[in-house]
Amino acid sequence: MSVPDSIAREPGASSTALAGEPLARVNRPLAGIHCAEDVRDLPADQLPILAEQIRQLLLDTVLAGGGHLGPNLGVVELTIALHRVFQSPEDFLLFDTGHQTYVHKMLTGRWHAFADGLRRPGGLSGYPDRAESEHDIIENSHASTALSYADGIAKALELHDARNRAVVAVVGDGAMTGGMAFEALNNIGAAPQRPVIIVLNDNHHSYSPTVGALAHHLTALRAAPLGAAMPMSPNIFQLLGLDYIGPIDGHDIAATEAALRRARGLSRPVVVHVETIKGHGHHTACAHAERMHAVEPLVSAASKRTSWTEVFAEELVDIGAVRHDIVAITAAMPGPTGLSRFAERFPRRCYDVGIAEQHAVTSAAGLAMVGLHPVVAIYSTFLNRAFDQVLLDVGLHHLPVTFVLDRAGVTGPDGPSHHGMWDLTLLATVPDMRVAAPRDTSSLRELLNAAVAYADGPSAVRFPKASVGPDIPAIERIDDLDVLQRADDPQVLIVAVGPLAGAAVEAAQLLAGAVGVTVVDPRWVLPPSAALRAECRRHRLIVVVEDNVGVGAVGAAIARDPAISEVGIPVHVMSLPHCYLGHGDRAEILTAAGLCATDIAAIARASHVALTDRAENS
Amino acid sequence: MSVPDSIAREPGASSTALAGEPLARVNRPLAGIHCAEDVRDLPADQLPILAEQIRQLLLDTVLAGGGHLGPNLGVVELTIALHRVFQSPEDFLLFDTGHQTYVHKMLTGRWHAFADGLRRPGGLSGYPDRAESEHDIIENSHASTALSYADGIAKALELHDARNRAVVAVVGDGAMTGGMAFEALNNIGAAPQRPVIIVLNDNHHSYSPTVGALAHHLTALRAAPLGAAMPMSPNIFQLLGLDYIGPIDGHDIAATEAALRRARGLSRPVVVHVETIKGHGHHTACAHAERMHAVEPLVSAASKRTSWTEVFAEELVDIGAVRHDIVAITAAMPGPTGLSRFAERFPRRCYDVGIAEQHAVTSAAGLAMVGLHPVVAIYSTFLNRAFDQVLLDVGLHHLPVTFVLDRAGVTGPDGPSHHGMWDLTLLATVPDMRVAAPRDTSSLRELLNAAVAYADGPSAVRFPKASVGPDIPAIERIDDLDVLQRADDPQVLIVAVGPLAGAAVEAAQLLAGAVGVTVVDPRWVLPPSAALRAECRRHRLIVVVEDNVGVGAVGAAIARDPAISEVGIPVHVMSLPHCYLGHGDRAEILTAAGLCATDIAAIARASHVALTDRAENS
Repeated sequence: MSVPDSIAREPGASSTALAGEPLARVNRPLAGIHCAEDVRDLPADQLPILAEQIRQLLLDTVLAGGGHLGPNLGVVELTIALHRVFQSPEDFLLFDTGHQTYVHKMLTGRWHAFADGLRRPGGLSGYPDRAESEHDIIENSHASTALSYADGIAKALELHDARNRAVVAVVGDGAMTGGMAFEALNNIGAAPQRPVIIVLNDNHHSYSPTVGALAHHLTALRAAPLGAAMPMSPNIFQLLGLDYIGPIDGHDIAATEAALRRARGLSRPVVVHVETIKGHGHHTACAHAERMHAVEPLVSAASKRTSWTEVFAEELVDIGAVRHDIVAITAAMPGPTGLSRFAERFPRRCYDVGIAEQHAVTSAAGLAMVGLHPVVAIYSTFLNRAFDQVLLDVGLHHLPVTFVLDRAGVTGPDGPSHHGMWDLTLLATVPDMRVAAPRDTSSLRELLNAAVAYADGPSAVRFPKASVGPDIPAIERIDDLDVLQRADDPQVLIVAVGPLAGAAVEAAQLLAGAVGVTVVDPRWVLPPSAALRAECRRHRLIVVVEDNVGVGAVGAAIARDPAISEVGIPVHVMSLPHCYLGHGDRAEILTAAGLCATDIAAIARASHVALTDRAENS
Repeated sequence: MSVPDSIAREPGASSTALAGEPLARVNRPLAGIHCAEDVRDLPADQLPILAEQIRQLLLDTVLAGGGHLGPNLGVVELTIALHRVFQSPEDFLLFDTGHQTYVHKMLTGRWHAFADGLRRPGGLSGYPDRAESEHDIIENSHASTALSYADGIAKALELHDARNRAVVAVVGDGAMTGGMAFEALNNIGAAPQRPVIIVLNDNHHSYSPTVGALAHHLTALRAAPLGAAMPMSPNIFQLLGLDYIGPIDGHDIAATEAALRRARGLSRPVVVHVETIKGHGHHTACAHAERMHAVEPLVSAASKRTSWTEVFAEELVDIGAVRHDIVAITAAMPGPTGLSRFAERFPRRCYDVGIAEQHAVTSAAGLAMVGLHPVVAIYSTFLNRAFDQVLLDVGLHHLPVTFVLDRAGVTGPDGPSHHGMWDLTLLATVPDMRVAAPRDTSSLRELLNAAVAYADGPSAVRFPKASVGPDIPAIERIDDLDVLQRADDPQVLIVAVGPLAGAAVEAAQLLAGAVGVTVVDPRWVLPPSAALRAECRRHRLIVVVEDNVGVGAVGAAIARDPAISEVGIPVHVMSLPHCYLGHGDRAEILTAAGLCATDIAAIARASHVALTDRAENS
């Protein structure tokens, strides 16, 4: 195996500014890394070259194909040191938020696959994946989980009398603001007999600069001389019963190795505080840490159209200019959720609470109790973290909080934990929750305005990570319901949720002349409206298309509605499959799930035929 | 208005050991407390008498009618001090975990109602209730929320330029182990301009003695002299940017008032560390803090039968004796979940992680990764707190973790946030999750054994807070399905979930001779089994009875099953209503929701008639 072409080419505009000697002719040491053991066997003088090659491969692959750049550039030396000190998988290397594992993948026999097909369908996942490697342990990429896994694994090793196997959790400072990380610290620190090594990768960022009191404390710790012994008075980790080693320069491999070996030798819970720079070794990635956290593939960046997020971001600013009671909340993601714009315009009315979804929701409840209307902008999948708070802190109190769920439906290349395919189920469980799913730019603007105008309880607006297509005109609006297509002989009603409206209209066109199809967009998809119920009862068969799992979502709500079930109108629900979806292209995943025009048409036609047959036979 | 008789009677066996002078003739000061202002107007020398009367009323009411005793006996003086320093509702008094608000209720015009009907249907709620009083702000009784509400309210007051209104969060040391409390601290501590007063009511307990590193730290702080100024080196709260006042003797009203006034005067975030004794003033309640945390009504205690919890507790010990890989996890509730017994027998294999449901679940995932089979014993409603962890940390990794959900279905007197009516929806969303609902003692034992024998993924067993009735025999078992009643002329199939089997069998008996009814208990209720599907297809109509909301639960899963929906068999789902249920008697709430024999029979009959009519008319 030799170093792939993408590494071999000369450093160009997209490559590291540090690259001095031409890497074209340097095949080793990266080419010789076939497994983690090879990293441990490398002579120390080869390590800087290895780091440089890894950095080059990161830049070439991610700048061309998209992915997480800054976080991985920042952990090159740290990951090398980890694999030299610990023997994965005998020792457990647990990476919190899996997007920082590209280097780990390269060092565990996957650099070639990395270069060939990162995040492409059938290629290497952008996150740890147990099917890929025994060195990947945690597949979930939601933040702040690694310490809890580590505590559980350490407990198991204690019972197995195998405490010689190290348990190492690598966690960013941003993830330490998540409550479950503290829950874990509280348990880990109370059990001095169970060794757990927490590598606190402190780069002053989550996606955005890390906020909050803990970040201030870490800043104070960093003010101590590098490699200093214990500071004068105990820090927060020591007060919680853990040892503390740091701060360490995480770009100094020898120093990091030494600290990790010392930590292992302690045989008790310890925090190794490693300071790194997000984007290290690449001028632009350092200077623009947020923008370069993750980059889009070159091709799609060139043909980039307006995203749903951008439309939301613009509209919220317009609303905020008029409605002084609107406040916005993000859990460490002002940029990706589109709130940066609102924050710039109305800095006093925008709150970044850190990676802390539970607090985001319940502090919103507090704001709403005193006359404000909070807009919580959050990825659909991260709403899972705050279901109890939505149900009881907001819902039970009937508070006017609007949840804006970005990345709803199929998200694409970010793996199973980043699809937004459960939010409709969770929101349907909350009594009186009103949920809107816009189909295009105009309806997103309209529905966002309507949601923040709703003052009697919670509301939500959901949309995907995608560019928004051209507006899909309605031929008629009945209350909140838009009729997009109307059949002369109404047989089948297709109820389209949000951005699936386009495919639904196309499906109706495919069936033109064969089956009389009406297509409606309820806009407010939960709970089912009177207008929707009336429209349903004018048809013999209902097909609901939604980009959520079918459990308890829109189709289920329509099927359960007495107005529909009592008269026995069959409801066919087309939804995402009830499994964990892998990474891939968004359109391809939707098509594979049957949420495309041809499949919708086929299902509508087949169901209609079955219905007609049954009627004739009875 | 005079002091009720229940106060006036002599101290008896059930009354406070401190009571010296006969309270019979002491009408004031409690009788004069009609609103919070009256508390502020009381001369200081009346306060000990007021405290004594309150304590007496607590004992009389709770020992007779049930409720939370220990926590409320512990906060008598603290609550008096709070109402003297702060002017509720102009100032915000936020009580974390609402079961500590009995004294607050008495001091805000509700002592008479308290004496008359605490926790009875139509009477005073055992938790804060905004419909009862403008002094009740948080209705949710899940722990660790108050600091987040406080942060939100403080943010709103800042925007309203009303920082003179105090925001006070009263939180137990046990609730501080919950991650969202830390998320809130991280935000509160970083905003010195926003005053928030956190009253840390440190009684060394949640339900059980508080565990973890933070508790050790609080113990160290308590070692400082009472009322001491700032300790030598900063404590954890100070490191997080908050001021710290304490420790204060929370049974010394004057000292507590002084500390609260000082805290208010600081006009910045501050923790007031108040030390109290759970059960203070009552010998038994102090000596047996866990047992006296909450007490059952006298009547039901006398006629007490074996509970579901007790059967589970026994069986788990039996399993643990054979299966050495079984470990048990509780989030601060070893007693109420029945795990105490397992902990006594197998202390190394039982983990109390504190009030930290997220960590409970993900540390279980870690344990399962290394060959153990964790049993997470948790109240159904608290599973809400860890949905993301169940879905992604356990589910996505296909780990063998068994969730034992106590308090599933209707819980009774503990108010809307304690019913376990959402777990089936959440669990149905998790791919490959297998859920069992036992109907009686034998099936609980069997299904628990089957659940921990299942090694390919997560499983759950759910049961209510109730005594378990006599076994309901099956006339036939087909795979996992139990047939409880078999009709000669099968027309209607009643699918009974768990403890509703009794009512379903009774309903079938009511319909005997009129409609041919089969009753089955699927035992494994999610996902629907092949045997259940086959049984469904032998009937013309299916009625599903389940004590969960209907959204996405068992009935919905059956209705969505292609084997059922394709042949057009109508599925009628009888479930809990889609709203927040108040407190009340469990049987009465179930009856009001239609989950009783007569209503099941009526619905089955009516649906069958409608079906027959429709068939004849078509």
